[in-house]
Amino acid sequence: MNTLPNSVHICEVGPRDGLQIESVRLTLLQKLDLIDRLAQAGLREIEVGSFVNPRAVPQMADTPELFQALNKRMGVAYRAIWLNPQGLDRALQAQTVDIDAKLAITASETFVQRNTKRSIEDSLAEIPLWVARYREFGLNYGSLTVMAAFGCNFEGRIPEERVIDLINRASSIAADHGMPLESLCLADTMGWANPLQVKRMVGRVREKWPSIDVKLHLHDTRGCAVANAVAGLELGVRSFDAAVGGLGGCPFAGHQGASGNICTEDLVFACEEMGIATDIDLNAIADTARWLEGLLGHPLPGKVMKGGPLSLRSNSGC
Amino acid sequence: MNTLPNSVHICEVGPRDGLQIESVRLTLLQKLDLIDRLAQAGLREIEVGSFVNPRAVPQMADTPELFQALNKRMGVAYRAIWLNPQGLDRALQAQTVDIDAKLAITASETFVQRNTKRSIEDSLAEIPLWVARYREFGLNYGSLTVMAAFGCNFEGRIPEERVIDLINRASSIAADHGMPLESLCLADTMGWANPLQVKRMVGRVREKWPSIDVKLHLHDTRGCAVANAVAGLELGVRSFDAAVGGLGGCPFAGHQGASGNICTEDLVFACEEMGIATDIDLNAIADTARWLEGLLGHPLPGKVMKGGPLSLRSNSGC
Repeated sequence: MNTLPNSVHICEVGPRDGLQIESVRLTLLQKLDLIDRLAQAGLREIEVGSFVNPRAVPQMADTPELFQALNKRMGVAYRAIWLNPQGLDRALQAQTVDIDAKLAITASETFVQRNTKRSIEDSLAEIPLWVARYREFGLNYGSLTVMAAFGCNFEGRIPEERVIDLINRASSIAADHGMPLESLCLADTMGWANPLQVKRMVGRVREKWPSIDVKLHLHDTRGCAVANAVAGLELGVRSFDAAVGGLGGCPFAGHQGASGNICTEDLVFACEEMGIATDIDLNAIADTARWLEGLLGHPLPGKVMKGGPLSLRSNSGC
Repeated sequence: MNTLPNSVHICEVGPRDGLQIESVRLTLLQKLDLIDRLAQAGLREIEVGSFVNPRAVPQMADTPELFQALNKRMGVAYRAIWLNPQGLDRALQAQTVDIDAKLAITASETFVQRNTKRSIEDSLAEIPLWVARYREFGLNYGSLTVMAAFGCNFEGRIPEERVIDLINRASSIAADHGMPLESLCLADTMGWANPLQVKRMVGRVREKWPSIDVKLHLHDTRGCAVANAVAGLELGVRSFDAAVGGLGGCPFAGHQGASGNICTEDLVFACEEMGIATDIDLNAIADTARWLEGLLGHPLPGKVMKGGPLSLRSNSGC
């Protein structure tokens, strides 16, 4: 347990990975309010929206307007995602997007076809094009995400060897074209991971690529998200995606029920209780979760938002 | 991670620790149905009810009738709790209760006063009386539960040293009166534990009392329950309390919101995925959780009951 990091960085993905699956559409002003509450609570990286086909993900159709209207705070990175060069062009046009050199592969052939209409080999073959575009904007280091890195609702358990091989190929292609990886995100897109598997996978990745920052993107589909995060922390992982209130899920993942991201405030609670600094105000983020629950009109799965942070009750009331 | 046990034993506490906080009262027939579904799902120890003051916990008032009407299955222990000798007498009168030699202390003075109207010293002083009564029924080994072993809503974080000292005193008193402990349950009654603390506490207990079976009773008040269970598993803990659907909470714990026990099916999922046998049918227990949710008329916090066990989706639908 001595390998626990002193601090972690949490990227808030609620406004994007969270809201994209909600049937209730927030207004532009509500989204702006949400994003600013998150920044005020101390989140220093926020996924605001996605530049994808608005017919495929209508909840994200207002992403360009959202970025135009953002009141950006100093020290906060306002991120977006894109799945093709047209999306990146739109993100660049918005001007206020904090662009990072996103590269993505998926460890499940079936899922990548459903999610992006391309194959794994297509994604690998496109890496040089992405690298060239990012380098035009002065980005020199890449961030690779491996989706469905632990399991897939369509293909089942994903062999670790396949994930390692894909990372190896993708990182080599990127490096050969002048863009070494600085970060690698292992995404449990469909909530298949367990703590033992996280330790094995993170251990292998850290052994093979010791200089690359490893990030975990976890979903709580089957209740293991915080345990999986702790497994990562115990291997020194310092970077996580999370969504306020435990919002979320991918609309193309074929879930039968709830499928939220790991809950931001529950992760903050677990970290802070173990002495790991997050620089996030637990009360403020729990307040934001409760406020958002009111807007969405259905219960969110977060626990701290209901159970409250640790604090003493008066002895008079129950 | 090589210390993970090969199998675990889960005691289902939903019918008692779960239902006691519910405003909806199940009928006797519904409770019998619940208990039998749990047994059929593979649970081999079930806390059926409590012989306490029916005015204090009206949801448990039908415990004697419940035990009279039980259709007991072979190999299943049907447990109850009691807080005073009168309660134990009533449990004995019911005849179908599987009596164990329960001894209990609480690590928070404030909480023990609220919960039992006695002090910590009173509980220690009563141990010889309990031992004598249990020995009359042929029980030779004691089970000690330490409530509020990690933290308390009224007193805050509980020092490990205090817990160790209390266990030391209680176990010595019991042994001196002829009843050595065979099991020790560390109860996170109010959801204060974090994985690092669980490892420290369990580590100290196992080092000091290597021959005593350690059990964890966890609540998911702030989202750490499964992570805390995994921390226990990593130190070789093989015994857990859990409640179907994540039901539960103590009516005297002063919670501000949800406070359920660790969810049985989510714990089963985490164990089985890590190769730890539970002998519990995940689909059957998740079905029971959904059925119970229907009876109670409000959402239960369990995840597997919504997200489903790991299984492949057809590629045609989303």
